[in-house]
Amino acid sequence: MLPKNVSIVRMTDAIAALRQKLGAAAVLYGDEISVRYEVDYSGENRCPPLAVVRPASTDEVAAALAVCNAYGQHVVVQGGMTGLAGGSTPRDGEIALSLERMTGIEDIDTAALTLSALAGTPLEVVQNAARDAGLLFPLDMGARGSCTIGGNIATNAGGNEVIRFGVARNLVLGLEAVLADGTVVSSMNKMLKNNSGYDLKQLFVGTEGTLGVITRAVLRLFPALPSRCTALCGVASFAAALELLNTMQSRLGSSLSAYEVMWAAYFDYVLEVTGLRSPLEARFPLYVLIETEGFEQAADQAQFDDALGDALESDIIADAAIAQSDKDAQHFWEIRDGIGEITPRMYPVIVFDVSVPLDRMEAFVSDVDSALATAYPGITNLVFGHVADNNLHLAVTTGREGDMATICEIVYARVGAHHGAIAAEHGIGTLRLPYLHYSRTPAEISLMRRLKKALDPRGILNAGRVFDASP
Amino acid sequence: MLPKNVSIVRMTDAIAALRQKLGAAAVLYGDEISVRYEVDYSGENRCPPLAVVRPASTDEVAAALAVCNAYGQHVVVQGGMTGLAGGSTPRDGEIALSLERMTGIEDIDTAALTLSALAGTPLEVVQNAARDAGLLFPLDMGARGSCTIGGNIATNAGGNEVIRFGVARNLVLGLEAVLADGTVVSSMNKMLKNNSGYDLKQLFVGTEGTLGVITRAVLRLFPALPSRCTALCGVASFAAALELLNTMQSRLGSSLSAYEVMWAAYFDYVLEVTGLRSPLEARFPLYVLIETEGFEQAADQAQFDDALGDALESDIIADAAIAQSDKDAQHFWEIRDGIGEITPRMYPVIVFDVSVPLDRMEAFVSDVDSALATAYPGITNLVFGHVADNNLHLAVTTGREGDMATICEIVYARVGAHHGAIAAEHGIGTLRLPYLHYSRTPAEISLMRRLKKALDPRGILNAGRVFDASP
Repeated sequence: MLPKNVSIVRMTDAIAALRQKLGAAAVLYGDEISVRYEVDYSGENRCPPLAVVRPASTDEVAAALAVCNAYGQHVVVQGGMTGLAGGSTPRDGEIALSLERMTGIEDIDTAALTLSALAGTPLEVVQNAARDAGLLFPLDMGARGSCTIGGNIATNAGGNEVIRFGVARNLVLGLEAVLADGTVVSSMNKMLKNNSGYDLKQLFVGTEGTLGVITRAVLRLFPALPSRCTALCGVASFAAALELLNTMQSRLGSSLSAYEVMWAAYFDYVLEVTGLRSPLEARFPLYVLIETEGFEQAADQAQFDDALGDALESDIIADAAIAQSDKDAQHFWEIRDGIGEITPRMYPVIVFDVSVPLDRMEAFVSDVDSALATAYPGITNLVFGHVADNNLHLAVTTGREGDMATICEIVYARVGAHHGAIAAEHGIGTLRLPYLHYSRTPAEISLMRRLKKALDPRGILNAGRVFDASP
Repeated sequence: MLPKNVSIVRMTDAIAALRQKLGAAAVLYGDEISVRYEVDYSGENRCPPLAVVRPASTDEVAAALAVCNAYGQHVVVQGGMTGLAGGSTPRDGEIALSLERMTGIEDIDTAALTLSALAGTPLEVVQNAARDAGLLFPLDMGARGSCTIGGNIATNAGGNEVIRFGVARNLVLGLEAVLADGTVVSSMNKMLKNNSGYDLKQLFVGTEGTLGVITRAVLRLFPALPSRCTALCGVASFAAALELLNTMQSRLGSSLSAYEVMWAAYFDYVLEVTGLRSPLEARFPLYVLIETEGFEQAADQAQFDDALGDALESDIIADAAIAQSDKDAQHFWEIRDGIGEITPRMYPVIVFDVSVPLDRMEAFVSDVDSALATAYPGITNLVFGHVADNNLHLAVTTGREGDMATICEIVYARVGAHHGAIAAEHGIGTLRLPYLHYSRTPAEISLMRRLKKALDPRGILNAGRVFDASP
């Protein structure tokens, strides 16, 4: 029994030291800890943290981590708790470090098109600040009201406009982070070109808080894009969907901001559940939602209509509905975003977030379909995704909770066989860690371990996320 | 004397082991080593390597590094030798590892818009392969015929289209690299979205060969851009040049592919030396070369002319010459590229490659001008640069070699004071290492050291480049 007691005493000492260092108000303990610190949006593996540290400045983050590191106290970093991979859900014996008090826009530079913000600032606050300055911060996703910019960067978030503006990594110019031992590394670069030594921010983008805690960021802004053209197309095959993508990229270039493909099973199920009507008369094997954004509605619309007209004439698309109003565009997007409506009806359901090379995508979908049908005749597998950025989502259910583990193995093994990524935009966290080997080699995982050991030798930061650091 | 002998014997052993492992033909020694392995394009600190290892495959790179690591033999990695920072120039006692035998395009995927190539492939070969497939690889610079794609990635090269397509980092999807101990880490990802664990390629992009040797890469391609609009504008002030930039970004969006600013002293000197005529009648404090690339010449030209016409009417620009032919455009670019013509006349000259935040740029240029003039009355300082990506070049000379070190101190100290980068696109190498502290904090340099120690514990790879790894 002694080791257990010793362990409990050490944790209490760490919390006492944190309260002494940061003030009792900055460290929630016992009944002060609300349920919101217990689990991320996945809802899985709920677990209360030992305490919640709420630093108000980078210096306080540094002080808190220095204390935890000295005590070997494990820490889970928390932003808006909107993740879907379990990364910010506490594990047994962890203290939560929440960035919720570190919010605010520090600076908007309308000439250089940059914005600096504290890590706990909600994405929507950043978006609105950019909009109020007549500019655009193009990172966007459903969780915008709750997710934080620090969390977006730590998970290298994707979202709706990746085809045009890239993932979060492409939108970060500078970063400040605190290492596990409390060292502050500030690289608040505002410049597009900078090759003065290692680009250290890359260590903290997409590493899910395992190498350091992001405290501030310099973000790229863009000119606002007032015009928008939207269409929903029916295509006869996946090959046609790919040909259409290439045609639109050649004709519309970087103004193409969305290219969303829905397989018929997904499309039909959404219509059935939501009562939305199809803007196309006939049924098709696949549907594609295309959107461009630009500067002049009339000129952009003419170019858009021309490109689609030519695609119709050359039989790349079978039919197309071009949005004539914002209401039309919203209708098309409601079908695409129907995933939010249908998942409650499908419960228990797994929504996969994978990437597959374009030349493998058709074979991947077909392989997964047949493997799932062989294992579970009558299984539901609804497929849709951003496609142009390789990202596919699959909503899969047999209606039985107990089948989930086998379904994961079936899908992730096929992702691996087709050289895909088991996590496209949601990250690995704890929930996908067991499947990482399908996408990454032992040499790669071993290098991740080497980095982890170099930056967090006591292994206190987000332990047990992304990969197993111990072997 | 003994330590010296011991050292020589160990080096000979390493070379013997390399010849045994890779075959004598793969290891040049003594008279077999031509001068091309002795110095990069900077021409400074020429030094013959002890031997030149020329592996023909990733496995041979791995075998060579494993041998060198076992012997503690220092290695300098060499691509096209077109660098300007001394990074690939051997230092005393180093063996050169040249990627020159590892050339070739492995794969072009015209649906996914990706291209895979071996690291030693010249940039121009990659560009031509993309062009032959009807596509575009947009990384471009003067050294295209000799520089290699591996070197471009290792130095995170910039060039002419950064404002539109980003630096080399943004064009790399996947990478294979060999660590100092011979471990092969292959992450040949072809997908835009992939958050399955750490993005390990970031360790090798822009770290100038200090953390590993790049052996293969997956690159992003883009649709070809057949149309081009070019103009040369005269503006009355730097503030006007910035306003013009913002106007063009809002009006022309991501089709803007070049925004090159020339200060009058540079412009006038180029005309004087080259005999080129100005396309504008009057003289102006600054000149701006603007270029867009797109898909339809007529529509693009109309939009381009409109945007410039409005800028003229609202007095943002004082005068503009719009290219009416390829010959006109070439003429405008010859003035911008006049740096190649004028440097031989300015010898001895330093051409700086720095970045400065846009809101500091005007003050930076003025501070440098007055500090240089105070130190050396009558000094020449010609300023021009990509500007929109923060990059400025300064060609500085007093005509005396002996003044160079002081001039560097003056310029780099001002870069530091204005939160700029002492290397924008050319990298640090050995030549800028003494000035790194002007752009990076001790905490940042210490973290670089931590990474170096984790990935190359014996310090055999490109030692003495980027930062001092020893303290």
